[in-house]
Amino acid sequence: MTYEFDAHTTVRPVSEGEYDAVLDAGWSVGGGINGGYLLATIGRALRASLPAKPDPLVVSAYYLTASRPGPARISVDVRRESRSAATASAELTQPGGDGPAAGEGAAGESVARIAALATYGHLGELPGEVLTTAEEIRLPPVEECVPSSIAPPELVDMAPLMGRFDIRFHPDQIGWVVGKPSGEGEMSAWMRLADGREPDPLALLMFVDALPPVTFNLGMPGWAPTIELTAHVRAAPAPGWLKVRHHTRNMAGGMFEEDCEIWDSTGRLVAQSRQLARQPRPA
Amino acid sequence: MTYEFDAHTTVRPVSEGEYDAVLDAGWSVGGGINGGYLLATIGRALRASLPAKPDPLVVSAYYLTASRPGPARISVDVRRESRSAATASAELTQPGGDGPAAGEGAAGESVARIAALATYGHLGELPGEVLTTAEEIRLPPVEECVPSSIAPPELVDMAPLMGRFDIRFHPDQIGWVVGKPSGEGEMSAWMRLADGREPDPLALLMFVDALPPVTFNLGMPGWAPTIELTAHVRAAPAPGWLKVRHHTRNMAGGMFEEDCEIWDSTGRLVAQSRQLARQPRPA
Repeated sequence: MTYEFDAHTTVRPVSEGEYDAVLDAGWSVGGGINGGYLLATIGRALRASLPAKPDPLVVSAYYLTASRPGPARISVDVRRESRSAATASAELTQPGGDGPAAGEGAAGESVARIAALATYGHLGELPGEVLTTAEEIRLPPVEECVPSSIAPPELVDMAPLMGRFDIRFHPDQIGWVVGKPSGEGEMSAWMRLADGREPDPLALLMFVDALPPVTFNLGMPGWAPTIELTAHVRAAPAPGWLKVRHHTRNMAGGMFEEDCEIWDSTGRLVAQSRQLARQPRPA
Repeated sequence: MTYEFDAHTTVRPVSEGEYDAVLDAGWSVGGGINGGYLLATIGRALRASLPAKPDPLVVSAYYLTASRPGPARISVDVRRESRSAATASAELTQPGGDGPAAGEGAAGESVARIAALATYGHLGELPGEVLTTAEEIRLPPVEECVPSSIAPPELVDMAPLMGRFDIRFHPDQIGWVVGKPSGEGEMSAWMRLADGREPDPLALLMFVDALPPVTFNLGMPGWAPTIELTAHVRAAPAPGWLKVRHHTRNMAGGMFEEDCEIWDSTGRLVAQSRQLARQPRPA
């Protein structure tokens, strides 16, 4: 069996450092495709170009224009490879055709969607010592959290992304669903892929940007476009549920930072990310 | 009068998107050049290529090889420009000559030092509303902090970078100087440039990586090479002292994240950064 995540992030080599992908509409929300899914797809092309360094250690993505379901090309350029790490740039483009008025190229031209830089390595070969003062995300037991499965059909129609996951939201941070946002810049949840695919370093690139924006809890519904997102993968996650927490502390100048932490089922901090995003515009 | 920071980050256009710089030894520590100074120099080349978008909003730098004092070339490639923002990639290279054994190219070849991506805009044109729950850095009054000017001459000889700043360290976080690290992953200080040059958005790119590594307070002296650093500039800083705080929570796999916050003299959070760095090796 091929899991959804693996099928939908497949990249097919077409020439040295060039890969074709097909962005799947199942990862979209409203008109846009989820940024974490795009990051993981780019991450897979990077891995294909760096066979001796299979794991993302750090990836930075700059989102240039909104990606759409359909074909995409990912170009990878390896900049530096040492014994333990390799750094590469990557660009995701899609065929244009809607014309410059829509921010698109003419038919036949390609449109740049995402520019990225990344350093890959081998998580399994790193020293085992862990010295952390970070506190594990506090969540009630899974069965006491609010499952994404109770979302009304019209929400799932608008956000097919929700169908990819089993999410159990912290009950104190889900009031936005019924028009009662918590007023605090935090959203945390248990997460796993709906079809049982276990998390791995590549999937963490997707999980860091898969929850609804933390601005929902600040009374600002709507799409919060990512300008830039950088993810650090600090360890390969164990199988099982992930604990995921998004947090913001500074909304200013029409932008906010959104920090994400992911802890695995053994209680280890496996990923940290920060993005700079645009504040949702009032409807 | 030209201030040191401006003189030493000067970039001279040589062709479309290509700039020459001379990396100044005054910003070095041990054998290496400070990563913040390098980031600001690249930031200045980016600004020269984006005249309508003068301010860095977010910059990500991947440090490929250790830069050295002397000539450098910065190449900028604008990827996307919209009404309010522009995104570009940049690369800093230096002439090689020490041969492949030293990680260098042969004489005549250039060696890539840093690959970067950045989005620029116009901080003065952003909406004025600020909604922050971040807590201002707590420091004793400047006159009760420990001035960098009392550093012994042999330390200044080893770290010329110290001569560029007036730093007043939090007295509880400076014990590492006398072999008594605090044991906590935090270092905070008042900072300004020694020659009175006031901070601006470009200088913030330098200030986010100018304090000694936070690992000094964890009993790990030594150079902590940056793998990647991303800085968000959230507002233009007011004149006067900056409050700067470095913080780490997770040392694992021989790496640690170092978060930096900078608050200006009016009590506004003006910059946030995070880097992934390698843990110093035991001497």
